[in-house]
Amino acid sequence: MNQTLTAEVTIAVKFSEVDSLRIVWHGHYVRYFEDAREAFGLKYGLHYLDVFGAGYVTPIVKVTCDYKKPLKYGEHALIRATYVDTEAAKLIFKYEIYRAEDMALVAVGETIQVFLEAENQQLYITVPDFFEQWKIKHGLK
Amino acid sequence: MNQTLTAEVTIAVKFSEVDSLRIVWHGHYVRYFEDAREAFGLKYGLHYLDVFGAGYVTPIVKVTCDYKKPLKYGEHALIRATYVDTEAAKLIFKYEIYRAEDMALVAVGETIQVFLEAENQQLYITVPDFFEQWKIKHGLK
Amino acid sequence: MNQTLTAEVTIAVKFSEVDSLRIVWHGHYVRYFEDAREAFGLKYGLHYLDVFGAGYVTPIVKVTCDYKKPLKYGEHALIRATYVDTEAAKLIFKYEIYRAEDMALVAVGETIQVFLEAENQQLYITVPDFFEQWKIKHGLK
Amino acid sequence: MNQTLTAEVTIAVKFSEVDSLRIVWHGHYVRYFEDAREAFGLKYGLHYLDVFGAGYVTPIVKVTCDYKKPLKYGEHALIRATYVDTEAAKLIFKYEIYRAEDMALVAVGETIQVFLEAENQQLYITVPDFFEQWKIKHGLK
Repeated sequence: MNQTLTAEVTIAVKFSEVDSLRIVWHGHYVRYFEDAREAFGLKYGLHYLDVFGAGYVTPIVKVTCDYKKPLKYGEHALIRATYVDTEAAKLIFKYEIYRAEDMALVAVGETIQVFLEAENQQLYITVPDFFEQWKIKHGLK
Repeated sequence: MNQTLTAEVTIAVKFSEVDSLRIVWHGHYVRYFEDAREAFGLKYGLHYLDVFGAGYVTPIVKVTCDYKKPLKYGEHALIRATYVDTEAAKLIFKYEIYRAEDMALVAVGETIQVFLEAENQQLYITVPDFFEQWKIKHGLK
Repeated sequence: MNQTLTAEVTIAVKFSEVDSLRIVWHGHYVRYFEDAREAFGLKYGLHYLDVFGAGYVTPIVKVTCDYKKPLKYGEHALIRATYVDTEAAKLIFKYEIYRAEDMALVAVGETIQVFLEAENQQLYITVPDFFEQWKIKHGLK
Repeated sequence: MNQTLTAEVTIAVKFSEVDSLRIVWHGHYVRYFEDAREAFGLKYGLHYLDVFGAGYVTPIVKVTCDYKKPLKYGEHALIRATYVDTEAAKLIFKYEIYRAEDMALVAVGETIQVFLEAENQQLYITVPDFFEQWKIKHGLK
């Protein structure tokens, strides 16, 4: 039975993130996704530094973002990252961004990461041992 | 017969854009897309300020980016935006990013924008007149 | 007797903020200052939106930052903004940034803001009424 | 007789750089300075990669920026970096930012960098040999 692994972070919209339309510039949502992915990593032991310590880096190979509503200065964003399990040697997260004030859905998105050996930057096409262990530990196997 | 409308811009990778893996941080590609979209707007009279002058703003409702190869500090990116015609009241661009030094394909992507009336931020569900005129002028109708 | 008015915020260093030397890129500290200035505004009723509501905007006319030690990915920054009272029609803050893990001093800085009338963007060369009232309320007069 | 060593770069203000006051957010000027410093490095053989090749990195230890006029979307910035010679083991640049359309002075600033040995991140308190050679080559000694 698979678990749903998820982490959330709430942030205040920054003045420097808002564009001349007085809404968060769309490119910043990619960083919001990263904020939630980092919160996930800290919560479940899959932080960039954990992965690096195991000898891997996990560059992003795909980002998708669908924008539903604007976010304004003075508002807060709740960003949720949910782990999506796959047999492939990939790390997939889905994201939802909500306006924290009323929990209106602001955006949804997805990222896909692959595993490279940190030392030689070679793509790792099977699931690395450390990640198999991580899956077992978190009830995904 | 439809025309292919396309614009290109070449930029140097900035020190501030490179992350601790010594490659351009993935989120900056969304801005690279915007750089090419602005070059397109200036070339074909569809710049943000042209659109605003016609009474509209065109927020992004979807971004996709597929990363193929990393870009490093000291390298240059050639970013190409290609207009994708549609019957819908949308503005669609496809993007290719090349490493200018050897024209290796670095990333591909797409953005979708909608038309809002600038004054009241209401979604415009039919193609605005100014945009119909723009299509005719550029041989798309 | 003057009060010391001060506000603090603690943030995690983001992956996207770290450069190829694996330290926070120096330009991001200006945003760190803004983070603390916003915390100050929320704490003492001098937020951008409060000021705007009173009919003013307060653009930055000077920034200084002295860098003492680097900040690394995985570390946290405690940023403190301290209000510096002046007779002039200016808003002055001093900043200290500490590495939260050991409270080592990472940077110090200062910003100076002036008052413009929001409507016409004209410089206001005397202290605005709302700001005099704010000073009285906070024991600075 | 000392030479004035200077380099310029002209950039278009990006949509993503403009804040809700419809002017370039003040923190981006630090990146504008870096753009001109990189142009200087490429022109005079003092690029980050040249310095790194000689075994050094040159982190910023101080930034100052005085803002004179706002820059708006649709405008262009001409950024000039001028080398300031010093006996100290430091690298000092002064900057002027002009609105390219009418050459109005938009901002002035300064950065100070020090020399660290790339390998061990130790501060180098005398002028490195490679930099002495660079000074001789460019008529500064």
